[in-house]
Amino acid sequence: MSVTKIEIRPGAYYDSVVLMHLQRALTDLEGVEDAGVVMATPANCELLADGDLYPEMAESAKSDDLLIVVKAENETSAAGALAQVDALISARRSTSSSTGFRPRSLESAVKNLPSARWLLVSVPGRYAADLTRKGLSENLNVFLYSDNVSLEDEIALKKEASKKGLLVMGPDCGTAIINRVGLGFANRVRKGSIGLVGASGTGLQAVTSAIHELGGGISHAIGTGGRDLKKEVGGATAIQGLEALAADDQTDLIVLVSKPPSPDVAAKLLSTAQTCGKPVVVNFIGYPAPAARLGNVYFAVNLHEAARISVDQTGSQPLLSAFNRESPGYLRGLFSGGTLAVEAVLALQNILFPLYSNVPISQNQIMANPMQSEQHTIVDLGEDVFTQGRLHPMMDNDLRIRRMRQEADDPDTGTIWLDVVLGEGAHSNPASELAPVIQEIRAKTRIECIVLIIGTSDDPQDIDAQAEAFRAAGAVVFFNLQETVEHIAARHILQTAPSKQRGLIEDLNLPFSAVNAGLESFYDSLIGQGASAIHMEWRPPAGGNEKLAGILAKLKG
Amino acid sequence: MSVTKIEIRPGAYYDSVVLMHLQRALTDLEGVEDAGVVMATPANCELLADGDLYPEMAESAKSDDLLIVVKAENETSAAGALAQVDALISARRSTSSSTGFRPRSLESAVKNLPSARWLLVSVPGRYAADLTRKGLSENLNVFLYSDNVSLEDEIALKKEASKKGLLVMGPDCGTAIINRVGLGFANRVRKGSIGLVGASGTGLQAVTSAIHELGGGISHAIGTGGRDLKKEVGGATAIQGLEALAADDQTDLIVLVSKPPSPDVAAKLLSTAQTCGKPVVVNFIGYPAPAARLGNVYFAVNLHEAARISVDQTGSQPLLSAFNRESPGYLRGLFSGGTLAVEAVLALQNILFPLYSNVPISQNQIMANPMQSEQHTIVDLGEDVFTQGRLHPMMDNDLRIRRMRQEADDPDTGTIWLDVVLGEGAHSNPASELAPVIQEIRAKTRIECIVLIIGTSDDPQDIDAQAEAFRAAGAVVFFNLQETVEHIAARHILQTAPSKQRGLIEDLNLPFSAVNAGLESFYDSLIGQGASAIHMEWRPPAGGNEKLAGILAKLKG
Repeated sequence: MSVTKIEIRPGAYYDSVVLMHLQRALTDLEGVEDAGVVMATPANCELLADGDLYPEMAESAKSDDLLIVVKAENETSAAGALAQVDALISARRSTSSSTGFRPRSLESAVKNLPSARWLLVSVPGRYAADLTRKGLSENLNVFLYSDNVSLEDEIALKKEASKKGLLVMGPDCGTAIINRVGLGFANRVRKGSIGLVGASGTGLQAVTSAIHELGGGISHAIGTGGRDLKKEVGGATAIQGLEALAADDQTDLIVLVSKPPSPDVAAKLLSTAQTCGKPVVVNFIGYPAPAARLGNVYFAVNLHEAARISVDQTGSQPLLSAFNRESPGYLRGLFSGGTLAVEAVLALQNILFPLYSNVPISQNQIMANPMQSEQHTIVDLGEDVFTQGRLHPMMDNDLRIRRMRQEADDPDTGTIWLDVVLGEGAHSNPASELAPVIQEIRAKTRIECIVLIIGTSDDPQDIDAQAEAFRAAGAVVFFNLQETVEHIAARHILQTAPSKQRGLIEDLNLPFSAVNAGLESFYDSLIGQGASAIHMEWRPPAGGNEKLAGILAKLKG
Repeated sequence: MSVTKIEIRPGAYYDSVVLMHLQRALTDLEGVEDAGVVMATPANCELLADGDLYPEMAESAKSDDLLIVVKAENETSAAGALAQVDALISARRSTSSSTGFRPRSLESAVKNLPSARWLLVSVPGRYAADLTRKGLSENLNVFLYSDNVSLEDEIALKKEASKKGLLVMGPDCGTAIINRVGLGFANRVRKGSIGLVGASGTGLQAVTSAIHELGGGISHAIGTGGRDLKKEVGGATAIQGLEALAADDQTDLIVLVSKPPSPDVAAKLLSTAQTCGKPVVVNFIGYPAPAARLGNVYFAVNLHEAARISVDQTGSQPLLSAFNRESPGYLRGLFSGGTLAVEAVLALQNILFPLYSNVPISQNQIMANPMQSEQHTIVDLGEDVFTQGRLHPMMDNDLRIRRMRQEADDPDTGTIWLDVVLGEGAHSNPASELAPVIQEIRAKTRIECIVLIIGTSDDPQDIDAQAEAFRAAGAVVFFNLQETVEHIAARHILQTAPSKQRGLIEDLNLPFSAVNAGLESFYDSLIGQGASAIHMEWRPPAGGNEKLAGILAKLKG
């Protein structure tokens, strides 16, 4: 019968590579059937239990204790294995690949590698923010691989970095490619003119790999960490990255990849993209694309398509957007067609923010009162609430005319957008009633009136005559929603030119040179790629004993 | 100073066209400044108030009362206008366009137009379900334009229709085109081989118009009403429509358009689409597309693209899907890459239902316990909960190997899907550890093992050798997610052949003939299009007086 024995080392710090190798070494010992070496977090304990490696006596271990479990054929083998733990750990240490001088402080590391412009941090999460802060004070950009860093720390670190013109990629940033050199996990790809910004590690890897396989090349791939596009962080790193690549001579086209961002951050990013002066390919994974293309911004359906479009478009002429001089005011879409209203919300939700509607796509778009527009608004006047005992607005223009006048009286209204659906069943001459109201509004305000006509040249209303009547009244006329949205997007792009991130661009294009703190394999990888690097012999304060560390900190203070 | 006077007609029924014309006629009278004629619902009263047409004395009017408000220059004009109400209503009635015999009951209408296969219902919502039920009992398909019909009535009516092989389009169905004839609101389009099913009125209009303008033509366009794709209704009409068009010789390609469906209904619809033997173009508006194409199913980003793809693909050879004989079991995706896991969820959520994940896209996909798969599962093993004090699964395969064995022990597992991300920083030879486990699983189970490799031919691991090692162990190997998903989708399509809706197809292709109840303009439109139609002189029981109607019903009962 198997015998299971455990050892608990309270508050001990070992790096994850050491733990992995210890577990393997224990499992390989004569007479040992299985072994587990983990920090005793609830999740790790559950994993041990699933593998029948969690005896009752292990329950006293706490989350920051190291738990060593050995299951062996007999008592002697189990005890013998545990007795070898320290020897096995030391054996691993001595075979480590990075030899030579190992500075124990960041100051010393920087003194020994004065060319260093980057710091790679892969120490445990609870120590990572402190080390990043030190990196920033040494004027280093930081690649922050560690996870389990608090949101507050992330926000503070990125604010400080941005002030200094430095980049913090992460926390939980798995990948980046800076001037040919892959950081963390990164595929080997040829140098080229496609720059990437990604709030998703394997997303960036999948796209850069596919670009390479399709014959394209990468200038830089900037990771941001998965939380960067959350409302609280506001896309700080993504926007810095976009602006840097926009100003970078090595980059002709930019790819932006992320898991779904918060709506206000998405709007900010797309505004930055629209005004960056280069083609941008966007894949917000799992987010409905507003269109296949809006001006210089392409929307890919998935990662592979993002790669294909970028390779196809590299070298194409960028479409420069004009900057507006005055505020375009709010958009008020007064729709008769429900689905057209939904499609308008969908296409505009990342461009006009905040956007409200009575046919919202997300909860934060719900109008408090469909009778009253607020900020940018798309209202479907064919909704049930408007049509009780009343004809549908495709037949009866009265309700819409009253609402047009109401919007025109609002000094914040900049654009009124109507859909006009022709065909059987619809009003026989909508322009005869709507165009005079447009003329009246144009005569006394600076409001732009947009009319989207849906119909065919065979429809009974004469589509050309309708369009002409609307144009004569001063309206801008379109025949599909996509063109209408492009027109609106062009009017509403951000009014400030992006900052140019000059210092950052220089850092990106210097020969890559970094201090590495944490996983040695990242140092080995940098050296293997021909970059300059120094590995710092990082140890947690008081050897990871948090109680003792607290006392030390107090003594220092 | 203006004078406002009102009249309240309790519980009176007038059709909306009559009300619209009365309001206009009142406004046109000498001395009248504005007028409102509405059923006194809260929304309508608020609209009146916004237009300064809601005096205090109107507050006693109830939702089913008719409220007539006149604002005039003086007392005399206001009183004079109200005195003319009945005369104005009668005048309107006599200019009505449909003359000749007007049956007062559906039985009599059908006797007078025995060719009728359809009933158009546009009476007020609270009477519409009853009339639809009568239509079904007369073996008529129903185009149900009315809104404000209860969900319970919709479910019951569709269940009954389906039993009889009849179609109920609606409630709140704005448009349809049956064998060249537009019902409700519909654009004039040429006859052709593109069939459409749409849970969105103007969505169908926009797509059919664009198809026509791009040179294509329409066989039939079947509306379903906006609620058809909700969980409760289950896509009853949409699935009937898809099956009918699939079996219809006039239709070569099918377009499916709707606002976002409920996830289980989306899965059902896509299964039906995948097995229908014809190309299907899908645009779930505002729903992220799983891919540009999955076998015979194309995903359009927006309505206009749906039209373009359909015209491009018409006449192309349909891709017939094979039917499986045995159940493929559950998919268990064990991912090291977070974004790849999210993309897998995104692409599969409409194909495998229900699908669970620790990186869910919607709330109903959340795994109760990331350590335990349930049904179809995609788990990201690189999530924080798995990596505390442990190397990332791209470096350390131990956690994934244990989980593979756990899945293999589950008799419900049909497929295990691994991603293997190569490149800098990653494990130097993942196949050396993972392939033997695949071999072991293949030797003792019928589980399919799929490996998605992300990397480039320049990566240090030798991508070809990795692939070969996985293949030798019995795995199916892919290099991008899209192909992997296509492979999985082909294994998991519905195992029953769709029913053929024979009777319905005959009805669709007969010369169009219908009874119209409600809006006369719909009758005029049918006649104008050369269809056979009869207008039924529908009146609500007891002239719309609900109290009296209740007494009458009791007397009958």
